[in-house]
Amino acid sequence: MIDPKSLDGCEALTDLDERERALVASLGTVARFDDGERIIRAGAEAESFFIVLRGQAVVSKDGRRVAVSDAGSILGEMSLFYDDVRAYDVDAVGKVELLEIRTSDFSSRVLRHEPPAVKLMQALGRLTVGRLQAQETDLARRLAGEDRDLADRLASFGAVRKRMIASWALRYHAIGRPGKIAVQPTKASGTAADLAVAYSPGVAEPCLAIRDDPGRAYEYTSKGQLVGVITNGTAVLGLGDIGALAGKPVMEGKAVLFKRFADVDAIDIEVDRKGVAEFVEVVAAIAPTFGGINLEDIRAPECFEIERECCRRLDIPVFHDDQHGTAIIAGAGVLNALRIAGKSIEDIRVVFSGAGAAGFATAKHLLALGVRRDHLTMTDVAGVVFQGRGDGNYLDEMAADTDARTLADAIAGVDVFVGVSAAGVLKPEMLETMAADPIVFALANPTPEIDYSLALRTRDDVIMATGRSDYPNQVNNVIAFPYVFRGALDCRAREIDQAMKVAATHAIAEIAREPVDVGSGSTVERLELSRSYIIPRPFDRRLLPRVASTVAKAAMDGGVARVELDLEEYVERLERMALDHLSL
Amino acid sequence: MIDPKSLDGCEALTDLDERERALVASLGTVARFDDGERIIRAGAEAESFFIVLRGQAVVSKDGRRVAVSDAGSILGEMSLFYDDVRAYDVDAVGKVELLEIRTSDFSSRVLRHEPPAVKLMQALGRLTVGRLQAQETDLARRLAGEDRDLADRLASFGAVRKRMIASWALRYHAIGRPGKIAVQPTKASGTAADLAVAYSPGVAEPCLAIRDDPGRAYEYTSKGQLVGVITNGTAVLGLGDIGALAGKPVMEGKAVLFKRFADVDAIDIEVDRKGVAEFVEVVAAIAPTFGGINLEDIRAPECFEIERECCRRLDIPVFHDDQHGTAIIAGAGVLNALRIAGKSIEDIRVVFSGAGAAGFATAKHLLALGVRRDHLTMTDVAGVVFQGRGDGNYLDEMAADTDARTLADAIAGVDVFVGVSAAGVLKPEMLETMAADPIVFALANPTPEIDYSLALRTRDDVIMATGRSDYPNQVNNVIAFPYVFRGALDCRAREIDQAMKVAATHAIAEIAREPVDVGSGSTVERLELSRSYIIPRPFDRRLLPRVASTVAKAAMDGGVARVELDLEEYVERLERMALDHLSL
Repeated sequence: MIDPKSLDGCEALTDLDERERALVASLGTVARFDDGERIIRAGAEAESFFIVLRGQAVVSKDGRRVAVSDAGSILGEMSLFYDDVRAYDVDAVGKVELLEIRTSDFSSRVLRHEPPAVKLMQALGRLTVGRLQAQETDLARRLAGEDRDLADRLASFGAVRKRMIASWALRYHAIGRPGKIAVQPTKASGTAADLAVAYSPGVAEPCLAIRDDPGRAYEYTSKGQLVGVITNGTAVLGLGDIGALAGKPVMEGKAVLFKRFADVDAIDIEVDRKGVAEFVEVVAAIAPTFGGINLEDIRAPECFEIERECCRRLDIPVFHDDQHGTAIIAGAGVLNALRIAGKSIEDIRVVFSGAGAAGFATAKHLLALGVRRDHLTMTDVAGVVFQGRGDGNYLDEMAADTDARTLADAIAGVDVFVGVSAAGVLKPEMLETMAADPIVFALANPTPEIDYSLALRTRDDVIMATGRSDYPNQVNNVIAFPYVFRGALDCRAREIDQAMKVAATHAIAEIAREPVDVGSGSTVERLELSRSYIIPRPFDRRLLPRVASTVAKAAMDGGVARVELDLEEYVERLERMALDHLSL
Repeated sequence: MIDPKSLDGCEALTDLDERERALVASLGTVARFDDGERIIRAGAEAESFFIVLRGQAVVSKDGRRVAVSDAGSILGEMSLFYDDVRAYDVDAVGKVELLEIRTSDFSSRVLRHEPPAVKLMQALGRLTVGRLQAQETDLARRLAGEDRDLADRLASFGAVRKRMIASWALRYHAIGRPGKIAVQPTKASGTAADLAVAYSPGVAEPCLAIRDDPGRAYEYTSKGQLVGVITNGTAVLGLGDIGALAGKPVMEGKAVLFKRFADVDAIDIEVDRKGVAEFVEVVAAIAPTFGGINLEDIRAPECFEIERECCRRLDIPVFHDDQHGTAIIAGAGVLNALRIAGKSIEDIRVVFSGAGAAGFATAKHLLALGVRRDHLTMTDVAGVVFQGRGDGNYLDEMAADTDARTLADAIAGVDVFVGVSAAGVLKPEMLETMAADPIVFALANPTPEIDYSLALRTRDDVIMATGRSDYPNQVNNVIAFPYVFRGALDCRAREIDQAMKVAATHAIAEIAREPVDVGSGSTVERLELSRSYIIPRPFDRRLLPRVASTVAKAAMDGGVARVELDLEEYVERLERMALDHLSL
């Protein structure tokens, strides 16, 4: 067995301790290659992966050099994610020493949930996804022109990434402890003396205190830290009505995001009820458990009435993220895009494609931000939502007084297009008819209403945002909901009202207007407001203190808060939280 | 400031790291005393506490030496738990150096949630409760005879302990993060690459897999690890119907016990519905979330129908711990008591005082263990539950064919008394009429149906158990429920049926029959089956592997399990869990 110390520089092993590295070392055998020898042959069966111990290896495709791998690099890791043939040639440069680990050996340890194997697998998954994301983003950015070769490479890359993520996602959820969240005691509880206060007999004291004053639940229980992520599974991601249970991975994922981005404890609750009244009844019944409720992935139009009824009946914040999260981020992006375009929000005309939960809420939010009611037109699969169309539902509120009947009619001359509908809905010829510096939010996922590079080729003055992480200006709800809830919980808000949502929008927009350096060392990148940076990046540490404190202030100003926070002290606390606590 | 290193030996600081000890050091000032000088005077106001840095101090009460405190000891710590006067004199022996910390300074840091102060406060709370428990247990054990002085001391000690625990319990729940539990991600989730599988887009894969095969939820989500601790707050501890929200501290405490004893994730759900149908509807609606449901603190008779309906409608284990937890432990205790008494379960006669949830379930469980139906009599506040009394409810099932009308009538000559009723119900003259080697389970809390020492003075052949931790043979539900659920979850049982409960009972009884050494170093104590050891202690590490595997085996044998476990491998896994994971 090799000396585990020789793995110290390995990129994938930084999270592993000495014992765990020793296990990795014990799994492999040393393979040696002389200068020019082929280590991996494209087209060969993929049965192992390698850690470069000494020397250099050149990765190439069809004779074209793709990368150089030094000591510490991982090679052939795709073999872990699906059974396949090698995609690249790899050749030794000088004398090369590798640790070769058979994929089947390693995978069987992962399947047996051996902790070091599970940990390494997670590190390799992260590394591989990160590599694919970086390469794809790079390709996408270079693909400004009509380079057919690049476009083909991008497409095949996208396919590989999709397949790899799909395979890894299943494994990621299954290995180690199934699922993504666990419950942990936060107080000393290891001895009988601890349990005498955590449980009987001492626990009677906080119970009695809460019985006498229900507000004390915020002091003595985790209620005030706990958000219920509640769904009925009727509109999960883009997958539709897959049922409450099948939505659980998304809801647990949401809980992970709450914790990672704002240290909010969140637990998923899958409610097996589709009817509005039945669902609301369940949410209302279990509400004492929570400090706030994040409704998630509930289809329209039921979601509107469900949210309204929950808000009416409960004295804690209820927030349907699919509506308001999207609305807040898109609103912030539009505000900054207008600044670049030199336009004022009262003057602009807006057209929506898509009138579901996100579309409807974003439209209403833009009105709250200052767009004039008669400057906004919604469209859906049936065309323009016009007065007299006779929808007879929530859409009537947004019906436009217009002769336009199609998106093509409605979009002519408008300043802003917001798409929350379907791939390819926005044709280049429509985009061409938009006003100068057209603002295009093409948020359909994974394929936007218009392809990013097609939009840029059609109009070089376009200011574009999508829902995708591989293009600039991603509208990603994680930029809002964790912080909105953090602020609402900390001031014990009774609800999240419009003023709080508007305040969050402005706070997010402002952050993108303040230049910032991201990355570290040689990869520092300066972000400044521009056509390709109108929305903060998800991992921006300024978001937590700024957005949460702004939301809390709006709640206090509006009389919605139950406690008054010292804002200066609160911001300091949030800044410490962002720095110390969040392992981003 | 003193050198933080001088705090290394301090009993309360073992959990604190170097930085945290430095903070403690910075809080205090050094006080020096010469031989014979009084450090603390009984009756003086308590404004600070001390850490002995050098020398010895003698603690005495009314001139009688109570303890000697060496370097590293804490003195005067009661000042932290309530404002009071000093209860003891403390005098220096030789030259003594102390770190004196003003209680008000320290408490204000705790109230500001400064992490090192919160941590130290928890350590001091643990230390103080532990001291009081140990001293009280010692006094109680010495109080076999009629020592009036000892009895008085015990009573005043009990009052101090109660007051201290009440004060500390409130603080314990409030300091640091309010409440006792938090939600933690279990998978790598710190980078965009991690989130691409934890959330969108990768998360769609497990969603689709579960949609196509709901059983996959056990593989890809935390469902199979997660127990809902669900209450409506109608019978919380001995406090009665205090409402769902006020029950939250108990439910969170239960979640802590699940995690600490069996690594089961549990989350409390407070349901604001008292009606049987409404409550069941809510539980059924949210059931997809959980792998099992622990009903808790729901009053009788509603609890019976709620449990029955939940079991009928759901395909996951539903277990009302107040009923079955008590039944399992009491059953195990009775089995072992019978062994000591040399009696056979088919022959014995049993009388119950109390026919609520715990009484009814324990009675039924004793029948399942082999007690003959016509050998068992229940009594409640109205006397004997006899055939023809006309209860017209669940009690009819247990009505006895007897002429006895009072507990006094019914108890004459019986072998076993089980009390789950009220303090003092079992009079010495009743105990005198019981058969030889009477088995008395006086489980009313905090004051049993007959005082422990009174029972022993009345009958020296009594075999006695109570619900209290300060007497031998505590019937503590934590000995059963974490392990019953662990076993049921791991084999994905559809329910927890009678066979599983009976199996758990025998497993627990067997453990107490196998001698074991507890404690460490000079405090090792050998436990062997005896009148004062018929039930395993709560912190016994044998419980997890033995009880959980026995329950899982019973589920597999009975066709209730959805997966077959390799039992040998499973026991090994549980043994590792008990050793590695549980910080008991």
